[in-house]
Amino acid sequence: MSKVIAQSIGVSLDGFAAGTDQSLENPLGVRGPELMEWFFPTKTFIDMHGSGGGGETGVDNDFAAKSMTGKGAWILGRNMFGPVRGPWPDDSWKGWWGDEPPYHVQAFVLTHYAREPIEMKGGTTFHFVTDGIESALEQAKAAAGDKDIRIGGGPSTIRQFLEAGLIDEMHLALRPVLLGNGEPLFADLDLREVGYRVDRMVTGERAVHMFVTRAGETK
Amino acid sequence: MSKVIAQSIGVSLDGFAAGTDQSLENPLGVRGPELMEWFFPTKTFIDMHGSGGGGETGVDNDFAAKSMTGKGAWILGRNMFGPVRGPWPDDSWKGWWGDEPPYHVQAFVLTHYAREPIEMKGGTTFHFVTDGIESALEQAKAAAGDKDIRIGGGPSTIRQFLEAGLIDEMHLALRPVLLGNGEPLFADLDLREVGYRVDRMVTGERAVHMFVTRAGETK
Repeated sequence: MSKVIAQSIGVSLDGFAAGTDQSLENPLGVRGPELMEWFFPTKTFIDMHGSGGGGETGVDNDFAAKSMTGKGAWILGRNMFGPVRGPWPDDSWKGWWGDEPPYHVQAFVLTHYAREPIEMKGGTTFHFVTDGIESALEQAKAAAGDKDIRIGGGPSTIRQFLEAGLIDEMHLALRPVLLGNGEPLFADLDLREVGYRVDRMVTGERAVHMFVTRAGETK
Repeated sequence: MSKVIAQSIGVSLDGFAAGTDQSLENPLGVRGPELMEWFFPTKTFIDMHGSGGGGETGVDNDFAAKSMTGKGAWILGRNMFGPVRGPWPDDSWKGWWGDEPPYHVQAFVLTHYAREPIEMKGGTTFHFVTDGIESALEQAKAAAGDKDIRIGGGPSTIRQFLEAGLIDEMHLALRPVLLGNGEPLFADLDLREVGYRVDRMVTGERAVHMFVTRAGETK
């Protein structure tokens, strides 16, 4: 059965899942890359970005690889898709990832501003959903069949899905860094009340991986 | 040289270092003991509480033991000393720990209400400091000589010392639990701006231990 999963979310010790002031120059926000320094050295990341092979294998890479495979659809927040705010000025922005994004399936982008779907190389099509997270999830489920749906991010999108109890499993990569400020993942969110618990913890090379599930659900 | 250290601070994945609604029945707040479930099974804790030997050795115990030894003085917040709020009704409350507290040195309790020192069995004397954290630290330094000073807690006390940059080293035991609510350790505190960074991370049996220092200082 299809599950709704958030994965490979880098989180700082002080609870931030993205930096402040996202922009074209800082897709992950200021100092945001420190949250993903467990992911960048992996074989999975390096293969994805075609920079010529190599990359580390190990625990971090295993979880990175798992997060990029087996998905039938993705849901992305507007900020994860790009730095453009407000109405789309034109159709030129097609995501951070160049001609061939790493999704290779239908990807649903949450936005307040309608736009025609964009078909990219490698099987990714971006669809723009203007009527909220439940609608995006319904469309993603229809597209995914019996495969899993990944909620890509950013933090604000993940928080909305968590608060509504719509995420079945979440994989966080907790990094030994203090970001100081940024976008918090947990602030003012009582995940225990919603029914979530930490299922297990596995130490990787550059992060400790925490797996969160709905209480009472088996993996 | 004497250092100011906060140690063995249990923190949940969602950033709480104590539960809500501390009381005589819940010294660590509601669900607070979940933050210390790495500490309770250790030989260090079991020896401290004289419950007949036994207890686990291993990584968690090593850090637990380290946090309880070599201190020349302790500083405790009012809530760590007891559940009594407001003026002391009488002299009957002498801490959570019975006749022989586990400190065995001078311990300075932050409070707004003056009280005579209390000499306990085993070398602990509780002193009540009414003129703020700097004064408490000054008195603790005088008492500690060249030994270290431990800031015991709770979270509000640790936050005050961190914000003032007065803690040299901090050891957190991050637990794979979601507390949901409680007393946050990091909220609205930009530790990076104050100059702190995570120095290293060590996985224990029931917690992952994070070591925070002032940037540029060596251990």
